[in-house]
Amino acid sequence: MRPIFEIQATDGAARNGRLISAHGSVDTPAFMPIGTYGTVKAMTPEELTDLGAQIVLANTFHLMLRPGTAVIALHGGLHRFMHWPHPILTDSGGFQVFSLASLRTITEEGVRFRSPVDGAEVRLTPEDSMDMQLALRSDIAMALDDCTPFPATEKEARASMERSMRWATRSHAHYHQSEPPGGLFGIVQGGMFASLRTASLEALLQRDWSGLAVGGLAVGEPEEERLRVLEGLVPQMPADRPRYLMGVGRPEDIVAAVQRGIDLFDCVIPTRHARNGHLFTSTGFINIRNASHQMDLGPIDPLCSCYTCRNFSRSYLKHLDRCKEILGARLNTIHNLHVYLSLMRALRAAIAEGRLSSFAAGYLAQRREAAGAVA
Amino acid sequence: MRPIFEIQATDGAARNGRLISAHGSVDTPAFMPIGTYGTVKAMTPEELTDLGAQIVLANTFHLMLRPGTAVIALHGGLHRFMHWPHPILTDSGGFQVFSLASLRTITEEGVRFRSPVDGAEVRLTPEDSMDMQLALRSDIAMALDDCTPFPATEKEARASMERSMRWATRSHAHYHQSEPPGGLFGIVQGGMFASLRTASLEALLQRDWSGLAVGGLAVGEPEEERLRVLEGLVPQMPADRPRYLMGVGRPEDIVAAVQRGIDLFDCVIPTRHARNGHLFTSTGFINIRNASHQMDLGPIDPLCSCYTCRNFSRSYLKHLDRCKEILGARLNTIHNLHVYLSLMRALRAAIAEGRLSSFAAGYLAQRREAAGAVA
Repeated sequence: MRPIFEIQATDGAARNGRLISAHGSVDTPAFMPIGTYGTVKAMTPEELTDLGAQIVLANTFHLMLRPGTAVIALHGGLHRFMHWPHPILTDSGGFQVFSLASLRTITEEGVRFRSPVDGAEVRLTPEDSMDMQLALRSDIAMALDDCTPFPATEKEARASMERSMRWATRSHAHYHQSEPPGGLFGIVQGGMFASLRTASLEALLQRDWSGLAVGGLAVGEPEEERLRVLEGLVPQMPADRPRYLMGVGRPEDIVAAVQRGIDLFDCVIPTRHARNGHLFTSTGFINIRNASHQMDLGPIDPLCSCYTCRNFSRSYLKHLDRCKEILGARLNTIHNLHVYLSLMRALRAAIAEGRLSSFAAGYLAQRREAAGAVA
Repeated sequence: MRPIFEIQATDGAARNGRLISAHGSVDTPAFMPIGTYGTVKAMTPEELTDLGAQIVLANTFHLMLRPGTAVIALHGGLHRFMHWPHPILTDSGGFQVFSLASLRTITEEGVRFRSPVDGAEVRLTPEDSMDMQLALRSDIAMALDDCTPFPATEKEARASMERSMRWATRSHAHYHQSEPPGGLFGIVQGGMFASLRTASLEALLQRDWSGLAVGGLAVGEPEEERLRVLEGLVPQMPADRPRYLMGVGRPEDIVAAVQRGIDLFDCVIPTRHARNGHLFTSTGFINIRNASHQMDLGPIDPLCSCYTCRNFSRSYLKHLDRCKEILGARLNTIHNLHVYLSLMRALRAAIAEGRLSSFAAGYLAQRREAAGAVA
């Protein structure tokens, strides 16, 4: 079924919503943990649910290469394959292909590249991307877009955006050829140029999308640039559709974007940082590899109520990391995801109670102080 | 407190017992998963408990090098350090030191070796081993022994056994200098020679031990040799003390040893094999890396009730293994430990109901058939 989006409360530009799909509903603003290869690294599906995750993101590009969409289709889709009965968003595969840099060739048809797994030539057109996402049976599929590099001239950004819009049209037509299992999101491009962003949005609004994403941010631009783009663009976006800011970000980036009306987020930071020993605390970041933790009997964060903080010392976590023990990656991931998913709960509660701006001001002040303490 | 051992039922030479320590009780025959670095690889303590593990084994040698016993002592012992509130058995560290081969020097005092972590010279005497195991506050400590190689001449085996007995005396004296937190097990050595095994047991029985272990088996000897040693030795061992067969083994080895009166087992097989994709089934071994599993929607074993078999296909497990995903190691470990711990439950039930020989005959016939099917 096509996802339905209901807005339940607003506070300034921010909204509390519910995104209802065939596999259940998602309370927004929501953070989507990344399940690249059909597993959020180190976690079971039940652990994710216990942490409060209601939706995960899976990477079409990676799953296309391993195990291949045929294996997943044989399972009846990604939900059954990975034993995650809740909503799944899949990306188009485009971003990862563009990241291959010299190994890929872009034409109007789509992208061709050499598989980093076996060297074979692979083609990814808007139609290919839709076919794969349909085979995965994701609840939310993304249109294939051309990823505008940063920095880009206005001319470059316009050409890239216009190609994205043509690919969006092809994605939309192909996705809706027969009854799809979910809904399709269009992606606004246009680099850092407000007029191009508006033009991109207007082009997309020629068609009906289940939601709209803001692409081409979190690509290295300064924070002020990103917020300026959001402040120009988001008020023009339809209020009755979910808005997804792709690839963002740090907790403070999420807070700032929620204040500007964004509903959905994904980022590798909590899970990847966890495996590298970078852990979030209410007074800043810690690196568990630091020698200072060796004799530290305290938890990562005494104010945290996660399984890891309730039961394990920093000393033990440092030991597990040093010995490359799997349990270390697990416990660190539980903690960082708890931080992110707790933040989303707190943001939803603040919006429901009409106190988002004071919550955000307090939170951002604390993060700035924490960043100062680390530096 | 010193562990207490109560025998609750016997069936031939086999016994159902309960080993009661300061951290709770263990139903025997019992299998101890290996928690080398203070973590049973890939598992949380709660998962182990859910699988039915009541005791784990930790390696003193590894913990001495990383994080060092001082860090664990600071936590008040290994239970708190690793968040495992149930019984723990620690080995003496001897076996791992002997495995270093050319890097170590054995004298009457003990063993000296170069740390494989930082190259520093480390000494391990019976007194050192006791001090470390006391610092870990394990419920069951093991005497330091000289590990007799296989094969060995009678002369070599005798000299090694006699050194082990002198070290056992020193271990016993040092462990009991003040009130210990648990109990100490002596280790019978003597290689494959029945008379040396008897002499070793008689030497040990000059002192009071909380239990007795059979060492120097599972070192590459033929199965018939191992069973011959057990059949000669075990009937001479005190009936009122737990008997621990160190490092054994495959499921069929455990069944055969339980029939001969052994109560405690440890082995890396279920956990290490799991991480390498070797999984036990009721009809034999499978290697999840085999191409035949790629399109297999079935579980590892349709007769298995573990979390992995209830929820995940062989195809998915093969994919996780291929992508080196942490979840793959977790799911495989859950399955193999479930197989081992279910076997121990079945053995205890068979003893309680006086039907061990028919259970064992059926089980061993099935394993032989499975081995034939794999070959």
